[in-house]
Amino acid sequence: MKKLINNPADVVKEELMGVALAHPDLVRVHFDPNYIVRVDAPIQGKVGVISGGGSGHEPMHGGFVGVGMLDAACPGAVFTSPTPDQMYEATKAVNGGAGVLHIVKNYTGDVLNFEMAAEMAMAEGIEVASVVIDDDVAVQDSLYTAGRRGVGTTVLAEKICGAAAEQGRSLQEVADLCRKVNGWGRSMGMALTSCTVPHAGKPTFDLPEDQMEIGIGIHGEPGRTRMPLKTADEITEMLALPIINDLPFKSGDTVIAMVNGMGGTPLIELYIVYRKLAEICKGHGITIARSLVGNYITSLEMAGCSITLLKADDDILKLWDAPVKTAGLRWGL
Amino acid sequence: MKKLINNPADVVKEELMGVALAHPDLVRVHFDPNYIVRVDAPIQGKVGVISGGGSGHEPMHGGFVGVGMLDAACPGAVFTSPTPDQMYEATKAVNGGAGVLHIVKNYTGDVLNFEMAAEMAMAEGIEVASVVIDDDVAVQDSLYTAGRRGVGTTVLAEKICGAAAEQGRSLQEVADLCRKVNGWGRSMGMALTSCTVPHAGKPTFDLPEDQMEIGIGIHGEPGRTRMPLKTADEITEMLALPIINDLPFKSGDTVIAMVNGMGGTPLIELYIVYRKLAEICKGHGITIARSLVGNYITSLEMAGCSITLLKADDDILKLWDAPVKTAGLRWGL
Repeated sequence: MKKLINNPADVVKEELMGVALAHPDLVRVHFDPNYIVRVDAPIQGKVGVISGGGSGHEPMHGGFVGVGMLDAACPGAVFTSPTPDQMYEATKAVNGGAGVLHIVKNYTGDVLNFEMAAEMAMAEGIEVASVVIDDDVAVQDSLYTAGRRGVGTTVLAEKICGAAAEQGRSLQEVADLCRKVNGWGRSMGMALTSCTVPHAGKPTFDLPEDQMEIGIGIHGEPGRTRMPLKTADEITEMLALPIINDLPFKSGDTVIAMVNGMGGTPLIELYIVYRKLAEICKGHGITIARSLVGNYITSLEMAGCSITLLKADDDILKLWDAPVKTAGLRWGL
Repeated sequence: MKKLINNPADVVKEELMGVALAHPDLVRVHFDPNYIVRVDAPIQGKVGVISGGGSGHEPMHGGFVGVGMLDAACPGAVFTSPTPDQMYEATKAVNGGAGVLHIVKNYTGDVLNFEMAAEMAMAEGIEVASVVIDDDVAVQDSLYTAGRRGVGTTVLAEKICGAAAEQGRSLQEVADLCRKVNGWGRSMGMALTSCTVPHAGKPTFDLPEDQMEIGIGIHGEPGRTRMPLKTADEITEMLALPIINDLPFKSGDTVIAMVNGMGGTPLIELYIVYRKLAEICKGHGITIARSLVGNYITSLEMAGCSITLLKADDDILKLWDAPVKTAGLRWGL
């Protein structure tokens, strides 16, 4: 296992120490239980927006804590759900009296632990709403899920709901918006290689040199099919068409499009995929109004990519354009 | 070779098509000869700032074209110098009458071709100044260089000089500033794995499973030494101490610090390196005033990292903080 780490058991702790040292203007890091929180939290009268999940998907979620996006993020061990006490403490830390939204990716552990944390917080009089993101069209059920997995739309939901909370919308409004974003977002990913979880010390799965996996999960969970490696254009079609046909996205729709790298994919390749995605969308009469090309929801050093399309109305586009200041996504500030 | 590409011969062209489609608000892409140029170029009365080099290091340079940074970038084939006509045409495209600065990484082909382009432009009455970046402390001469290689300081120079040009400083002033930044910047990198150039189809070099290379170049050129894999803390020391001792950076100095991923390194690992770098700087009495942690000057999917320290005065820090709007680096806009 070749990694820039010290002891596998210390990976998350030492990463969080690095985050705290690199971004003192944006975040504070709380240890035991671990969470990353906006430096100015709690903000009185503002809905708090938090998320969390296993580490190894950076910049999601910790890199999205800051003005206009998340108020806090709870990182678990690599590819492992955070514990309810992390989410409970983070909820308390961001509660400014207007309630707290939990954005939860649909993995069994995340869902259960966020539910427990919400109950604990509500028992103390904090209003909590939870929205589960389940946008991955690849498979219906999965290794760690009942129903679809939560993937790329999470990044877009965090940006858009964070902007809405920053504007002063109510918990009900921000939660409804998050449900709308989840309802309008669809994703699918693929892998060229596996990744290696530090405490496992060996690749999560074997993928022969001439094979790829279509529909892969962000923890390396099996997708739809393995097949011989295809061209970027063919792969982009294999991801984009199931996404478009699922909602379905229709001629005349406006979307935000994300081409996301899994962690070990050169940016040059992601732009080649984006080129074909833009062509496919155009062919379907779908207008890409905004785009994001880069590493946003990763799987350690996995090579591969995912595509997310989010149907967008004027409200969503305005919230997308609103200022954001985080380590992983920043504009206008 | 596992890559998200179509034909290896089309990689750069198709990437540039993707860039043009993804960022129409920021840049235009010119083909044959290839260059990426600010959508609003040329800007009358503003010094134009351009750079270029082989592709495969994205987001550098094309991802740094936009307000407050580069006016144009010339991408060559992967790991291959762009041609003089690319630089010449880009120079003409950004010339707003105040002259053009060429920021050139110290590789023999880049230096020769930028020289030729500068002569061609000057023959047409365009004032051109060139500054060569040679900040890599790893080795004195190298496979493609006489003298030190140009690496991470290039990113910082492009940001700082781009801001100075945006402020309306003269060509002489921007060029002098670029020389100061080069004089005050030092870098060193390391690799855990090789990368594979698309048209080569196989890894650039072999690095056994238990070995790493310290002082690697961004094209996989040999560094100082190969040795068994060490911990992240030991590796960070092996990079930081030669950098600190070279300038030398002294107690009381203020710096901008970059921990850069080579393309295939998870962000979580870069923050572990940053944590140790911050500790080392503190131990030397060096204050990190600003930091950058992520993939900025990459080597395709190589796993590894580099560290850059730039001594910074108030002018440099203010220019660093100035608004920038590019695909790869953005704040304030």
